[in-house]
Amino acid sequence: MALPATIREYRSQGVSHHDFIIQNVPLSKPRTNEVTIKIHAVSLQYRDLAVSKARYPGQKEKPVPCSDGAGEIVAVGRDVKGWKIGDRVSPNFALDHIHGDVTEAIKNTGLGGQIDGVLREYINVPAHSLVRIPDYLTYEEASTLPCAALTAYNALHGPVPLKGGDYVLVLGTGGVSIFGAQIALASGATVIMTSSSDAKLEVAKKLGVQYLINYNTNPNWEDEVLKIITKTEGRGVDHIIEVGGIDTIQKSMKAVRYAGQVYIIGYVSGGDSGIPIRPAIHKAITFRAILIGSVKQFEDMNRLFIARQVHPVVDKVFPFEEAIEGYSYLESQKHVGKVVIKVTKN
Amino acid sequence: MALPATIREYRSQGVSHHDFIIQNVPLSKPRTNEVTIKIHAVSLQYRDLAVSKARYPGQKEKPVPCSDGAGEIVAVGRDVKGWKIGDRVSPNFALDHIHGDVTEAIKNTGLGGQIDGVLREYINVPAHSLVRIPDYLTYEEASTLPCAALTAYNALHGPVPLKGGDYVLVLGTGGVSIFGAQIALASGATVIMTSSSDAKLEVAKKLGVQYLINYNTNPNWEDEVLKIITKTEGRGVDHIIEVGGIDTIQKSMKAVRYAGQVYIIGYVSGGDSGIPIRPAIHKAITFRAILIGSVKQFEDMNRLFIARQVHPVVDKVFPFEEAIEGYSYLESQKHVGKVVIKVTKN
Amino acid sequence: MALPATIREYRSQGVSHHDFIIQNVPLSKPRTNEVTIKIHAVSLQYRDLAVSKARYPGQKEKPVPCSDGAGEIVAVGRDVKGWKIGDRVSPNFALDHIHGDVTEAIKNTGLGGQIDGVLREYINVPAHSLVRIPDYLTYEEASTLPCAALTAYNALHGPVPLKGGDYVLVLGTGGVSIFGAQIALASGATVIMTSSSDAKLEVAKKLGVQYLINYNTNPNWEDEVLKIITKTEGRGVDHIIEVGGIDTIQKSMKAVRYAGQVYIIGYVSGGDSGIPIRPAIHKAITFRAILIGSVKQFEDMNRLFIARQVHPVVDKVFPFEEAIEGYSYLESQKHVGKVVIKVTKN
Amino acid sequence: MALPATIREYRSQGVSHHDFIIQNVPLSKPRTNEVTIKIHAVSLQYRDLAVSKARYPGQKEKPVPCSDGAGEIVAVGRDVKGWKIGDRVSPNFALDHIHGDVTEAIKNTGLGGQIDGVLREYINVPAHSLVRIPDYLTYEEASTLPCAALTAYNALHGPVPLKGGDYVLVLGTGGVSIFGAQIALASGATVIMTSSSDAKLEVAKKLGVQYLINYNTNPNWEDEVLKIITKTEGRGVDHIIEVGGIDTIQKSMKAVRYAGQVYIIGYVSGGDSGIPIRPAIHKAITFRAILIGSVKQFEDMNRLFIARQVHPVVDKVFPFEEAIEGYSYLESQKHVGKVVIKVTKN
Repeated sequence: MALPATIREYRSQGVSHHDFIIQNVPLSKPRTNEVTIKIHAVSLQYRDLAVSKARYPGQKEKPVPCSDGAGEIVAVGRDVKGWKIGDRVSPNFALDHIHGDVTEAIKNTGLGGQIDGVLREYINVPAHSLVRIPDYLTYEEASTLPCAALTAYNALHGPVPLKGGDYVLVLGTGGVSIFGAQIALASGATVIMTSSSDAKLEVAKKLGVQYLINYNTNPNWEDEVLKIITKTEGRGVDHIIEVGGIDTIQKSMKAVRYAGQVYIIGYVSGGDSGIPIRPAIHKAITFRAILIGSVKQFEDMNRLFIARQVHPVVDKVFPFEEAIEGYSYLESQKHVGKVVIKVTKN
Repeated sequence: MALPATIREYRSQGVSHHDFIIQNVPLSKPRTNEVTIKIHAVSLQYRDLAVSKARYPGQKEKPVPCSDGAGEIVAVGRDVKGWKIGDRVSPNFALDHIHGDVTEAIKNTGLGGQIDGVLREYINVPAHSLVRIPDYLTYEEASTLPCAALTAYNALHGPVPLKGGDYVLVLGTGGVSIFGAQIALASGATVIMTSSSDAKLEVAKKLGVQYLINYNTNPNWEDEVLKIITKTEGRGVDHIIEVGGIDTIQKSMKAVRYAGQVYIIGYVSGGDSGIPIRPAIHKAITFRAILIGSVKQFEDMNRLFIARQVHPVVDKVFPFEEAIEGYSYLESQKHVGKVVIKVTKN
Repeated sequence: MALPATIREYRSQGVSHHDFIIQNVPLSKPRTNEVTIKIHAVSLQYRDLAVSKARYPGQKEKPVPCSDGAGEIVAVGRDVKGWKIGDRVSPNFALDHIHGDVTEAIKNTGLGGQIDGVLREYINVPAHSLVRIPDYLTYEEASTLPCAALTAYNALHGPVPLKGGDYVLVLGTGGVSIFGAQIALASGATVIMTSSSDAKLEVAKKLGVQYLINYNTNPNWEDEVLKIITKTEGRGVDHIIEVGGIDTIQKSMKAVRYAGQVYIIGYVSGGDSGIPIRPAIHKAITFRAILIGSVKQFEDMNRLFIARQVHPVVDKVFPFEEAIEGYSYLESQKHVGKVVIKVTKN
Repeated sequence: MALPATIREYRSQGVSHHDFIIQNVPLSKPRTNEVTIKIHAVSLQYRDLAVSKARYPGQKEKPVPCSDGAGEIVAVGRDVKGWKIGDRVSPNFALDHIHGDVTEAIKNTGLGGQIDGVLREYINVPAHSLVRIPDYLTYEEASTLPCAALTAYNALHGPVPLKGGDYVLVLGTGGVSIFGAQIALASGATVIMTSSSDAKLEVAKKLGVQYLINYNTNPNWEDEVLKIITKTEGRGVDHIIEVGGIDTIQKSMKAVRYAGQVYIIGYVSGGDSGIPIRPAIHKAITFRAILIGSVKQFEDMNRLFIARQVHPVVDKVFPFEEAIEGYSYLESQKHVGKVVIKVTKN
């Protein structure tokens, strides 16, 4: 395949996503340890909204946005082993998070924030950052995995991993929450999900989520959770995918069992204050804050997805030229699951 | 409920199960920390055959046979907390294996071998040995869990626990193997099963087992296993439920991946010799020998079973008076899954 | 040994420890599953101060105070196995915390708070709550272990256990902190300790603590911690014994490494507010709140103590009749390590 | 530093170590992802004896021998991050074993066997294979770590890691055994060691090993082990560094506790047959075969060594030109700890 001399890429202008520009830049050759990926699809996160407003801690100036892309290898550096042209791949969110714990140096390799991201037609990345896309997934589906799915997987498969039979509470129907539900279900757990919308809960129901709570009609949803559990074991949920922040954390602390696990992932409602210490001790709760995950975890997650043929929930797909509309749609919070930008024509 | 003054129980006479006798004995009251269980159903293991021939290491003389029973509480000792008349329960295989590792002292509380077992109408057991029977299971189904299911669960959920997406190889279609397949499937794994009989494999297929190998038509079944894996990841299976012993262990060592887990559970074909050291090192294999499990593990297993409504495979049910026929049927190896003795009339 | 008909016990009157009374009560016989312990020594915690002021959540009215005692068995219930008269023992803090996670029901068996405690001459406790006292420890030393030492052990040996070579930061020189340092040192870790007093740090130095920081002369002690680490690995400490609460938590979050472990144990400076969510996520920190520990953990801890002959730091010993002075001394915060009450004469 | 145009290297001729030749070869430049190391010291293993006789499975023809070297970086490839000229380093045993489990592909990057090794003046290795040498160690000391020490560390810090207070039995006083003792001691364990020689046991005693057994004067050493344990806990050792193979494995199975860990590391006395299955099940023993370890484990081990300033036991040092004498000395089994070859002059 002959590669183009120049490619199109988005470039953030630092006020909002409405100020993005598309520019033409030369396509450089991969270094000896890199591959060139032709990006087919990109998915959006809340982090991308923060970056577009220059509000994400540690972000570079005017980055190429977006962390989550899926594509195919079109060129291979001289010293790269194990990868070839045509392989379907995604780069990991933090390019240097290969295995083990995140560090500050690793965090500083985060695509679409600390370094330039994937909202462009081609990108060069180190071979060590690559993860193979499962055969049964389209590029659009695969593009949703690097940030949202891996965050949920990292949460649920940490030092106190989800066991089949556990109860998992997921807050809301955003990307991480939906993936949390799918991963828990594929692993033999029982899932309880909250949302403000019956229509969104209906989507979750079709995925197999066993218990659905509308927190508009049940503002004390934590009591509802405990009622569900009481029918069975009377002790609270084992794991919580906590994305709400300050408004939900105290309710989550009521819903979780003694010595249960709360995964701190987002702060839709604020994140400056937070977790009260006294009640945390009196229930011996663990709060584990999650920062995406590693290539190793990504591979492990894909094995689970393949075994159960898990399909990501793609809410809506926008063409490359309309990426800005995709950002606006995400901001409107009308979606369930993921918003995707198709980079190639098909 | 008025309890009878005397009850019927089987008593092994130490040569074979054809020499079992049924005797009437007084029903004693439970001690302060015990409950009295009315046994409804009992299931059989290969261990029961060994005990009936007085060939099981450490067994007492002429024991009441059988380890696996399910029934209801009909009397409660004065100091017992948390249990009441009418509760449906099974005693754990080793009465004192509450949690953590087995010890010699714990092993010496094994029902139907080191101490008198459950093949009788009523039994007194300590409250700490009890596990609640899931509501959706019949007594016949529940009676199959204490030994065979818990052995498989202990194997697959040890220090290197099964993860969703792993490959699990189970040898044969005996009780432990079938449960191993069901537990693995409920947890998001992919299962490969071997058998000498297409009819038996057909039963496994209905449970959802993805890959079936007849080792009569494929005597080099380990190559077949590797072919299945090669299509996906080319590295061997992650876990093996190894019940074959000396005849299968070397094939299992070929089928397992580097640094994989082989669970040593039985030795149908002999157990005096065994695992060659040199090739074990060159693949960094772990062999973990399994001795049933604890009350804690039993409870964890039941949570998984409840979440996925797993139903044990009961092959055939014999009435109490025909328990000897049940033993003979087990010995014939015509069964798939478990052979059960119904102690109560309906 | 002839047991007395009546014994002396303290009884809280619910305003402060100055309102304690000593009363004579009959000594009842142990139940079938219990033993009678002659208490030789009792140690004090901050929790005991809270209970004495009727400020501890869930405490019973006017309890016999104190959770931590050491003594010898003087009578054994009929169904008790494995214990005999003369055995030196401590009851676990929560009588029913045998193994695994704490639950609400278990928490409600906490000595000297939810139920009557050990500040008396004799006590009956279930055999399942007993832990053997290591031979090399005196009763005074042994009485310090149940709450403070076990809290530190539970913290450091949880789902992400301390490994030899890790850096452990302990705040202050209270009971839990000193034990945290001793456990970490015995396990091959490097310890950094803070205090407001050079005299107290001198005590820690003698225990082998490698790095000492006076936070009065170094109010930005977290920078000092990072300087120590920078000389070696430049990444922050792996584990923090966090007893400070709201005033120290943000400094602790600077001192810990990415993906490090902060053990939430106390809130000297307040516990209603607490852990900010946003920075927790940006460093992927885990906060694990600790509620003492189980009999199983107590036994594991004793094995470590025996192997390294660890001696608890006993600051001062008060006679039984002067227990109130012991409380006042604890409240004055002049101590390093533990304050003990000797119940028996010699 | 000006690098030489040609360097000296040993080359095995495939019959025995007496057939090694020294040859001069050009020094090639490092690839973009490699560094050039000037080797200062090399240590010897039993594997090196097997390779020298062309008896090691999978070895290449006439390799440059030896896996364990220590030196300094003298040139750095263009794309290498984090390493600079002058850094003191060792390459990992298997160059591509970065983290996680060993695989067949990883095993095939084993220095001095599957690929050319370190018995030469300079070597180019990928930056991902490097481990930093602790400051307090000499090159001679550091050269002993890659194979022997890491094997012991991998064994003792696996899925059921050594805890402070555990009992560890190490067989013999070879390299892995001595390191096993040092790692266990640094981590708070109690060590029992066997040997045929009181002189060798004396060396171990100086390291702090608590219990020493001469198996010539105590041929039933397993009974001696159990006597030691009985004085304390009466249950057998928790971990065994098993290097003996067929002659010792059955004794080891007596010495280990129920559900204990036996690490299968060597087969001095033969490795074709091995572990009997039946008694393995009746004690629920785990046998974990060990194949060296990863860069990640190497780094973790160095942290422990640094914290306790552990010094490897170097028995004897031979100059580069007398490497063959070093091999003969190792073969004579007169050593305790490690035999080292000094490559550079001072």
